[in-house]
Amino acid sequence: MHSKPALRIGLIGTGFMGKSHVFGITVAERVFDLPYRLELACIADVSESLARRAAETFDFSGWTDDWRTMIDDPEIDLVDITAPNAFHKEMALAAIAAGKHVYCEKPLAPSAEDAAEMAAAAQAGGVKTQVGFNYLCNPMFTCAREMITAGELGEIRCYRGVHAEDYMSDPESPWTWRHDPAGGGALSDLGSHALATAEFLAGPVVQVLGDSFTVIRERPDGQGGTRKVEVDDVTRASLRFENGATGSVEANWIATGRKMQHEFEVYGSKGALAFSQERFSELRFYSMNDPTGRQGFRTIVAGPEHAPYGRFCVAPGHQLGFNDLKAIEVQGFVEAIAGSRPEPFGFAAGQRIQLLVDRIHDSARDHGWVDVA
Amino acid sequence: MHSKPALRIGLIGTGFMGKSHVFGITVAERVFDLPYRLELACIADVSESLARRAAETFDFSGWTDDWRTMIDDPEIDLVDITAPNAFHKEMALAAIAAGKHVYCEKPLAPSAEDAAEMAAAAQAGGVKTQVGFNYLCNPMFTCAREMITAGELGEIRCYRGVHAEDYMSDPESPWTWRHDPAGGGALSDLGSHALATAEFLAGPVVQVLGDSFTVIRERPDGQGGTRKVEVDDVTRASLRFENGATGSVEANWIATGRKMQHEFEVYGSKGALAFSQERFSELRFYSMNDPTGRQGFRTIVAGPEHAPYGRFCVAPGHQLGFNDLKAIEVQGFVEAIAGSRPEPFGFAAGQRIQLLVDRIHDSARDHGWVDVA
Amino acid sequence: MHSKPALRIGLIGTGFMGKSHVFGITVAERVFDLPYRLELACIADVSESLARRAAETFDFSGWTDDWRTMIDDPEIDLVDITAPNAFHKEMALAAIAAGKHVYCEKPLAPSAEDAAEMAAAAQAGGVKTQVGFNYLCNPMFTCAREMITAGELGEIRCYRGVHAEDYMSDPESPWTWRHDPAGGGALSDLGSHALATAEFLAGPVVQVLGDSFTVIRERPDGQGGTRKVEVDDVTRASLRFENGATGSVEANWIATGRKMQHEFEVYGSKGALAFSQERFSELRFYSMNDPTGRQGFRTIVAGPEHAPYGRFCVAPGHQLGFNDLKAIEVQGFVEAIAGSRPEPFGFAAGQRIQLLVDRIHDSARDHGWVDVA
Amino acid sequence: MHSKPALRIGLIGTGFMGKSHVFGITVAERVFDLPYRLELACIADVSESLARRAAETFDFSGWTDDWRTMIDDPEIDLVDITAPNAFHKEMALAAIAAGKHVYCEKPLAPSAEDAAEMAAAAQAGGVKTQVGFNYLCNPMFTCAREMITAGELGEIRCYRGVHAEDYMSDPESPWTWRHDPAGGGALSDLGSHALATAEFLAGPVVQVLGDSFTVIRERPDGQGGTRKVEVDDVTRASLRFENGATGSVEANWIATGRKMQHEFEVYGSKGALAFSQERFSELRFYSMNDPTGRQGFRTIVAGPEHAPYGRFCVAPGHQLGFNDLKAIEVQGFVEAIAGSRPEPFGFAAGQRIQLLVDRIHDSARDHGWVDVA
Repeated sequence: MHSKPALRIGLIGTGFMGKSHVFGITVAERVFDLPYRLELACIADVSESLARRAAETFDFSGWTDDWRTMIDDPEIDLVDITAPNAFHKEMALAAIAAGKHVYCEKPLAPSAEDAAEMAAAAQAGGVKTQVGFNYLCNPMFTCAREMITAGELGEIRCYRGVHAEDYMSDPESPWTWRHDPAGGGALSDLGSHALATAEFLAGPVVQVLGDSFTVIRERPDGQGGTRKVEVDDVTRASLRFENGATGSVEANWIATGRKMQHEFEVYGSKGALAFSQERFSELRFYSMNDPTGRQGFRTIVAGPEHAPYGRFCVAPGHQLGFNDLKAIEVQGFVEAIAGSRPEPFGFAAGQRIQLLVDRIHDSARDHGWVDVA
Repeated sequence: MHSKPALRIGLIGTGFMGKSHVFGITVAERVFDLPYRLELACIADVSESLARRAAETFDFSGWTDDWRTMIDDPEIDLVDITAPNAFHKEMALAAIAAGKHVYCEKPLAPSAEDAAEMAAAAQAGGVKTQVGFNYLCNPMFTCAREMITAGELGEIRCYRGVHAEDYMSDPESPWTWRHDPAGGGALSDLGSHALATAEFLAGPVVQVLGDSFTVIRERPDGQGGTRKVEVDDVTRASLRFENGATGSVEANWIATGRKMQHEFEVYGSKGALAFSQERFSELRFYSMNDPTGRQGFRTIVAGPEHAPYGRFCVAPGHQLGFNDLKAIEVQGFVEAIAGSRPEPFGFAAGQRIQLLVDRIHDSARDHGWVDVA
Repeated sequence: MHSKPALRIGLIGTGFMGKSHVFGITVAERVFDLPYRLELACIADVSESLARRAAETFDFSGWTDDWRTMIDDPEIDLVDITAPNAFHKEMALAAIAAGKHVYCEKPLAPSAEDAAEMAAAAQAGGVKTQVGFNYLCNPMFTCAREMITAGELGEIRCYRGVHAEDYMSDPESPWTWRHDPAGGGALSDLGSHALATAEFLAGPVVQVLGDSFTVIRERPDGQGGTRKVEVDDVTRASLRFENGATGSVEANWIATGRKMQHEFEVYGSKGALAFSQERFSELRFYSMNDPTGRQGFRTIVAGPEHAPYGRFCVAPGHQLGFNDLKAIEVQGFVEAIAGSRPEPFGFAAGQRIQLLVDRIHDSARDHGWVDVA
Repeated sequence: MHSKPALRIGLIGTGFMGKSHVFGITVAERVFDLPYRLELACIADVSESLARRAAETFDFSGWTDDWRTMIDDPEIDLVDITAPNAFHKEMALAAIAAGKHVYCEKPLAPSAEDAAEMAAAAQAGGVKTQVGFNYLCNPMFTCAREMITAGELGEIRCYRGVHAEDYMSDPESPWTWRHDPAGGGALSDLGSHALATAEFLAGPVVQVLGDSFTVIRERPDGQGGTRKVEVDDVTRASLRFENGATGSVEANWIATGRKMQHEFEVYGSKGALAFSQERFSELRFYSMNDPTGRQGFRTIVAGPEHAPYGRFCVAPGHQLGFNDLKAIEVQGFVEAIAGSRPEPFGFAAGQRIQLLVDRIHDSARDHGWVDVA
């Protein structure tokens, strides 16, 4: 019955993001008319028992505790990496070398240099890649960008972005790989989202002025002692955009009470947009075209007129969920693999975000503006 | 690899709700550890080509243009009905007669009498049933009910419920089966949700005082003429609850601008709750236990502490989508079939809602309070 | 220096509303260019010491413990009544008989008959009158009515109004005159506001279907015993408007957590309005004239383009306060006395509200629709 | 009848802030039990006709076109300066020299040096002074500071402040004194508010990293040509607080659609606060003391338990207005003059804000962190 070719997926990692990818793939398969049939071919984890259990739970055809074997398996077309950041580079380069398309969770790599190497390899290898910046897949983000591009806000002048959560707010929360200076910290973990959104909406950043701060300077090491924290809890940066606009972003993972404060405000000469991921089906729009005495921020609610919302639900206002954004992300990548559209957010884009992260850290360390090449 | 028994599903209908059921089943299969493996065995539609295309799109093993054959097929365990309301009774009775579990979209039937017949047949047939009141599956609804049961609001005194949308707001929108007095109208279509929520939270209603109104009195008949509309555009009712509380509901499908105004407010002697489906991951809670000068409605955001949110996402505030609520609905039914919990919202519950709808219509017609037996 | 004639005010009552009137008069005098100079001539209270203290605090020229003397004093032009409801009629009739303009707090009288007698007397006496429905003085109400009148919402179809607070929520709160069936209760106290707003926006009500309920059936009598409560804690009513629209209001003074839930929603064929007194400087407007994909409720914020906001502040968004609404109320009355505009809300209007209150009580008692003559 | 001594006020300026001061004085006189009777003795404006008209409108006993004469008049106790910024210093020094108390609109002076000279003169002269930072007078600000001081948020870690409006958004809006580098610009005009709020809540700032930007680089000069704009349209700064917290402020006067975005968020180890002047009667509070599954930002609404709200209104939720905040400001100053409390925001405090403004400008110019002595 299936006339579509199969795209056989090998997933590395069985944790939070591993699950989220499975959910996204599953929903994408049902909701969209994809160019491939997505096959959950194999799942890899360092623990064989975890891998086997995940395979059963999520209906993968196979499992392994050796990701290298899986990557080299000719029965795998796409390698999907949700392992800890430190392994991204090694895994991705191996997959590219094996000629596989690669889907990698963010951040792509601990440094812009590593990310550049990965992007170059993907380019040279002729494979398609994707980094998991799923907030950008929100139909209301697409709507926002279309509005900006169409000039509904006029000339873009100012941008304000935040990504704040509170999962590192507790000083008793132990030291983990997220606190490793090689790739960890609030800017890398959350600020990367804020930066991706900023460039998605307002275009390339050309200069940054950074400020990083560590509030909780040591954390339990899990062995009765403590370990020094050398990464940022809060980083903010002033930005200059290529289009002449000015802006800022803040990354904060100790913002008590905040679960998902991914926010942006864009101010143009004719209008403005405001958004919070806390209510991600809503986009607030102010237009100076509205009559005097009738102006105000209006709340646009996601509906079928904001593609691809209509694939999920024909009625407006019913709301998509987090895993639905992941499904849209999967759709974009699969269509890019089929060649019907450019990569939505390939390794080169991931490298770009990493570059911004590095430059902001450079600026924070050196106390001055830094150009982003 | 699959050690679980299969639950083979035959779905009737390929429209909006048919899709939504498929999405819900698919997500439930991945997200939950269900007692059965869910098999999309067959899909039925009066149009064979639609049925075949849906089977391909959604990965059903088979398709048919004859739902009766499917219902009688011993390879089908569960019949899932998303056909127009007018067919619910005939299909459900046939499925029950064939010993199948039945999942039926709301409203269960055009009248309480029909619904009672269906509920009795299910009871007699020993099959499990479910009516699709998916709003009740929201973790924040569960949370709200737990709070009420635990006495966090004190004695419940007042209830206010609304379900308003605007999809019938345009007078040029043509006459459809939703405008047929046998089962159609705003109260039946939307008010049934408001009533289900009211009883879910505040317990049984014992008396109703109804008021129905038709604003758009004729609609295009699709053949160049118009057809008289005999159903309600707006119905509201005062309610008395068994627990002594007073309340109201409003159903409205011409509320211009409203896409999903399913709202409730519950006032108790010690606190209050307020909710809107427009932001269904949020529950607002006022507690008189908070210190003086620090009281206020707080916005509780859905997170892993509100089961089963954590099955979808380990981090709070990421939001579930409409189809995720459907997945929770599927989970509940499948577990009831396995006998591990009571039916979450079986035909008897559906009959109850239909009874309330009928009594409110009776009251509106006769202009006085009506007891709900 | 003062070329304006004086309007000499005699105020009865030194409580909450007495103060509020003084504040309103004081602000109005400064903010507006009124046709009269407002003189705080005399203040009356049954307690001479309270009267004297209030005179000193609020800068009245005189005080008295005998309101009759004050009313008859030829040096008084306007009698302002903020005494308990039970005295309104006697005081107002005396003032009218003495040829004084009368400003009376709401409700005008305990029954429509009494109110009619007062309105007739005012009419016959040729004096100007005002009842204190200050919510109507909000610039955003004026804006809302202008929008409706101008057709920006199209044909008005549905109306939903609420006035809920929680000041009677505590069962230990003692029996007061507000619990006296002659004029007390939630509908009279709060519902009167909701009804005034309903007719202000959607025009005359022609039929009502009422439902009244008493939750707290006895209250402490202040002498160690309890006293039976015979007034409503919650009343709701379905409404039919002369223009063909359908609507509802709810009055509720036991709505735990609500401090000022005076809300309305108006749905028309082309747009909608939503408002809450909790944020009374904001009016939410949905317009179907907005482009597809850009529609949504917009929040219009009070500014100089919403007269008379600009008299208080030249910059938008700075917000008026409750006492500022009272000042606008004073302005309207003073201009009516000068003959430059009709009475904004005279005794006839107050009588009208009382009629609606009575008819809703009639309906609630007799369980059926009641015409409003 | 008046037993209180008089405080005779001479007001300079008849514009927006002049009016606002009159309204504030008038309301304060009525609402509070002040230690003095406030007399509107004289109003000065360079235009005699404007001065006379304002005297009549606002009920001043006298008027003048010569502010120097007024300042020297022994019948004046308090000089209230609402003239353009450029005159503040000269007027204030003259008033201090004449032994008068001085109430001066913000900003105190174009530079920290000038402000220091004024503060020193006031100190030496033994007069009481006040700078008009009225946002700080909001009862919800007092509440916020009390919560922070009482440890309800735990250790303060992060602060985010914004003051954005759009009154300079239009490039056709002409060059005015607000665009003069000597004291003008968004940071001086709006950022000063944000800085005052930041220190009010989180304590002294010890280091700043500034970024200033001019979007609209020339404006009409009112004579057919254009004039270069040398002040900032947008300035943001990273901050370090003495208590170890990190923070930021943004000042922006071209934020299209924003009328009053004076916002703060304070994050502590046990809780958080969020506030927007757009809804200044509301304070949002998150407390980790709330039970699991019941945590969330709660909206505390201003009421009598938040002094001095109860002076304006005995019922909660009725809302104060902008001019009411000014009245509270007047109350504080008058009580300071009577010696019953310290100056709420004297010239030394105004000097402090000016110092912060200057240091942020220094930092923006020199591209590095700057200590605030």
